[in-house]
Amino acid sequence: MARFISQEKLDKLYDSLHTHNLDFLFLTDSEAHRDVNVKYLTGHPEDASLFVDIKNRQTILIPWDYQLARITSEADRIVNMADYQGLIAATIEVFSESSSSTPKVGIPRGIPYDSVHLITEKVPNTEIIYNPLIIDSLLADLRSTKSEHEITLMQKSVDISNQLVKEIEEIIITQSKIKTEMDLAIFVESRMRELGAFAVGFESLVASSARSWQIHTYPRADPKQSMYQKGLALIDFGVQAVDLTSDVTLPFIMGPMNDKMKTIVETVKSAHDNSIDAISESQYLHEVAEVAYNIIEKQGYQMPHSLGHGIGLTVHDAPLLRKEPTHESMLKYWTPTPIEEGMIVTIEPGIYEKDVGGFRLENDVLITRNGPKVLTNAEPIFIDLN
Amino acid sequence: MARFISQEKLDKLYDSLHTHNLDFLFLTDSEAHRDVNVKYLTGHPEDASLFVDIKNRQTILIPWDYQLARITSEADRIVNMADYQGLIAATIEVFSESSSSTPKVGIPRGIPYDSVHLITEKVPNTEIIYNPLIIDSLLADLRSTKSEHEITLMQKSVDISNQLVKEIEEIIITQSKIKTEMDLAIFVESRMRELGAFAVGFESLVASSARSWQIHTYPRADPKQSMYQKGLALIDFGVQAVDLTSDVTLPFIMGPMNDKMKTIVETVKSAHDNSIDAISESQYLHEVAEVAYNIIEKQGYQMPHSLGHGIGLTVHDAPLLRKEPTHESMLKYWTPTPIEEGMIVTIEPGIYEKDVGGFRLENDVLITRNGPKVLTNAEPIFIDLN
Repeated sequence: MARFISQEKLDKLYDSLHTHNLDFLFLTDSEAHRDVNVKYLTGHPEDASLFVDIKNRQTILIPWDYQLARITSEADRIVNMADYQGLIAATIEVFSESSSSTPKVGIPRGIPYDSVHLITEKVPNTEIIYNPLIIDSLLADLRSTKSEHEITLMQKSVDISNQLVKEIEEIIITQSKIKTEMDLAIFVESRMRELGAFAVGFESLVASSARSWQIHTYPRADPKQSMYQKGLALIDFGVQAVDLTSDVTLPFIMGPMNDKMKTIVETVKSAHDNSIDAISESQYLHEVAEVAYNIIEKQGYQMPHSLGHGIGLTVHDAPLLRKEPTHESMLKYWTPTPIEEGMIVTIEPGIYEKDVGGFRLENDVLITRNGPKVLTNAEPIFIDLN
Repeated sequence: MARFISQEKLDKLYDSLHTHNLDFLFLTDSEAHRDVNVKYLTGHPEDASLFVDIKNRQTILIPWDYQLARITSEADRIVNMADYQGLIAATIEVFSESSSSTPKVGIPRGIPYDSVHLITEKVPNTEIIYNPLIIDSLLADLRSTKSEHEITLMQKSVDISNQLVKEIEEIIITQSKIKTEMDLAIFVESRMRELGAFAVGFESLVASSARSWQIHTYPRADPKQSMYQKGLALIDFGVQAVDLTSDVTLPFIMGPMNDKMKTIVETVKSAHDNSIDAISESQYLHEVAEVAYNIIEKQGYQMPHSLGHGIGLTVHDAPLLRKEPTHESMLKYWTPTPIEEGMIVTIEPGIYEKDVGGFRLENDVLITRNGPKVLTNAEPIFIDLN
């Protein structure tokens, strides 16, 4: 495996952190705390600490499994912990090669407290730099646009997703094979692996009409929940073909529709289509989001989540598609995110009403030089239960 | 849902933290950082902060989804964040009710750095107490023995596991239904949910004989990997029927066996059986572990992992079944763990040799008043490929 970050972006990472006077960036990935940036910067799948040596412009990986790292990782240096008395000794050695007598070590905001504590207590003369607005923003920003390699990998996830959409539609329309929420989840998760996916991108959400007004509905609550009840139902699933994950929501209209259902379905569909169209004309992502919010709010509804988000090595990458904040306390930290070539984002407007049900339509969109390219083919599926 | 901790243990938690002069214990669970102790102490499934108010002996939950928490949680107090300007304001309010002017707030070692930073920067007059030997050890210790409620839930996972063991055996012996590692993973993971499991306890590990010498083998590397090659193969899976997970490894001997294979199989089987028998006679868990290590090392092999571990709300609970450490630096922090009624541990000796393959047999054992009760029924499965 190779690292996911491009050389150009890696240079940008070194340059930017150098500007902020950092000597090292310290990342760690373990069973207790996954940080996909280790994989992003080195290609190593999991369980390792990583020092980005900013002055010497090199990545130094300290993996749990040294043999595996030698095959999978593209770090400039791989430290064999067996050569040292644990991580601390290895870290002291790495820091001692730095030109700074008091290395400034940047950390991401979610790093486990004990990893930081280990360094401040055991590695003499280090200064911890906690600055999410620089460090976390930079990493998120780098990952928000995808390299050609990443786009190729995403296409594999998209292809399997589209095959699944087709098969789910046939199953639902013919009311065959599956009955309960759990049946549908099992079908989708096994079938994607038969089609070549390495893993599910995330645990599928399946809601029959009785529960679809909730936003996040695991198919757990009631194994007997039937999918074929009148109202609005949905499945939200992700395919991880290799390393990148898709994210698709397929809504089912179990008709006949009453007027309230009709309004919700049409409003969401309009928000979906119009916000995708707006990508071409807008300069900034919040402008795209506002197209959807305006359509939904004009009908008297609220959307209780963002219009969408980046997808990639995780199902929740940057950027977020949100409105411009109104509170001054939020505005202070907010800068508009320009739409950029290489972003892959979900567009997933939804309305959730306790007495009608929930309806969300979600597709994945790649931003190209020529505008938005809708990668997935989710459409509302209608069946008449009368 | 109800909390998992018993009242007796909750009292012990308050008493013990009070002895150490803490005012609060601060835990947090989010998508970025799962801490199952929130669920253990309140029953709330996920996404919440929790303050254990030690002086007033109450649990104060600040959930992301207030409505859900009112149904699922047994916290003494549930704070509706909508009533406050965010978590900080709610925290300041909670702390202001404390009798201490400078509340001492204990944290677990793996808590995200930003959660701690938020309190030290924004909540005036607090003191953060980082002391894994007291805080983390206490929580692990409480969770290492299971209540009757937990044992009942584990039995559900065990029942499904045992049904799966039977079905896998039949599939492998008749060489029907499944061919590749991935086929077997898909079968097990879908079938457990058909049998009533809410989720997989962890991602299944499946290794055909070519790869079984590796310890952790996801069924990803090669979708074409056939299970029916001569040598040693295995599947390691967990069933989460409700909230507690089982953990079983079923080894396959794809015969005929050569002498090296025979030695490995017999040594592991002997280590497995004798260490379970030793549970009755031993006082401490490291004595049990040493029975297995001695048998394996006597044959000239090494076991590169512990003999077993606790299972429960996570697949890796306390205690660990390890030898007494030999390094003085480790011995300093080590105290022998007595065998206690209510522990549920895996017994999973294994030997991994690159030119022969890997062989691990794993069963789950409940410690009862009358000695060990083996809950699962994994046995080596032999087929002759000649």
